[in-house]
Amino acid sequence: MKVYTYWRSLATFRVRIALNLKGLTYEPIEVNLDAGDQHQPAYKNVNPQMVIPSLVLDDGSLIYQSAAILEYLDEVYPKPPLLPADAKGRARVRALSLITVADSHPLITPRVRNYVATTYGLDDEGKAGWVRRWFAQGLDAYEGHLSRDAATGTYCHGDLPTMADLCLASHCAGYTVFKGTLDRHPTVKRIYERCMADERFASAHPLRQPGAPKAH
Amino acid sequence: MKVYTYWRSLATFRVRIALNLKGLTYEPIEVNLDAGDQHQPAYKNVNPQMVIPSLVLDDGSLIYQSAAILEYLDEVYPKPPLLPADAKGRARVRALSLITVADSHPLITPRVRNYVATTYGLDDEGKAGWVRRWFAQGLDAYEGHLSRDAATGTYCHGDLPTMADLCLASHCAGYTVFKGTLDRHPTVKRIYERCMADERFASAHPLRQPGAPKAH
Repeated sequence: MKVYTYWRSLATFRVRIALNLKGLTYEPIEVNLDAGDQHQPAYKNVNPQMVIPSLVLDDGSLIYQSAAILEYLDEVYPKPPLLPADAKGRARVRALSLITVADSHPLITPRVRNYVATTYGLDDEGKAGWVRRWFAQGLDAYEGHLSRDAATGTYCHGDLPTMADLCLASHCAGYTVFKGTLDRHPTVKRIYERCMADERFASAHPLRQPGAPKAH
Repeated sequence: MKVYTYWRSLATFRVRIALNLKGLTYEPIEVNLDAGDQHQPAYKNVNPQMVIPSLVLDDGSLIYQSAAILEYLDEVYPKPPLLPADAKGRARVRALSLITVADSHPLITPRVRNYVATTYGLDDEGKAGWVRRWFAQGLDAYEGHLSRDAATGTYCHGDLPTMADLCLASHCAGYTVFKGTLDRHPTVKRIYERCMADERFASAHPLRQPGAPKAH
């Protein structure tokens, strides 16, 4: 399979972790978001939405939207599972995942933050503030749920990583890149640190991908 | 089961359609978003994220995030299905659903559009323009995928409604409330009209809920 990817993309970070956890190999194809490659016909023909990641199977089928890709990978390659076996647990893991996927990350994608910056005259610090604002609200939501729920374990749901941890990791990675700290969110911080101590998460981090700037 | 709802909420509209399709009854509990009820302790105790919808099962379990609620309902009440049986089809329906849930709707929720309006001084028309901008991008994504895919039928995926149609219906309902038209998106328009001709969709529309303003 092929994965259309770019070092900076947090949605692709989630997918890379899942591929690592499942032990799957793939052909990465760079879509340089900074150069606008996503808007070129070559990529628009792959995914008319012109966003990444896209997964293209060996038969040419397109699987897109990071959360749909995670679900697909989990259905076709069920070991190790990214979702628990019971319906309520699955709902909880999906809901935690959606705090990032459906509430926070959409607000800080380049198309949105660049539009806000250009239209309302934000400088780099203003843009970073925009990102931190919405990610911090997502962190509040995570902390509120994770800190009260008995189902929370070493990871978001029990003691094995699930889809929720992939999403939480991408959330925290994005927040810290934009100079946020996790000091007000101790449960989130504990789980994020646990995740990033795992090479299957760590090696998928944006700053460890080809083309990424050197870490400061 | 109880559903925390408000007439205007597009995410709750999606859930109401699913409940109608599955033939499930529930106790609606109003959370008046215009009065800020979602931030009061009574609701924060239900859902620390302070957004709706929330589904509370008879055993007290919380199911939250509209897409996770739809998946839960489909797992526990599988007839009629909201997802196709094959993994690629399921991925396609989830991806189409996420065009609304993860790319468009998050940008226009009250917390975001009110923040943008207050911070950058938008009037009502400016706020409506903000909403239309992001919903129109989502419509372009829908049209791009739906118009080229052989899997598109009477509905988004074949000839029976799926999760994607619930999300598309909420997207189009929101867009038209903010004075958008579907003339540039003929495939979307055709499917939306098909959906809204079905009383299980139509009766769930925001403007048909208790507390909604009278239709103009």
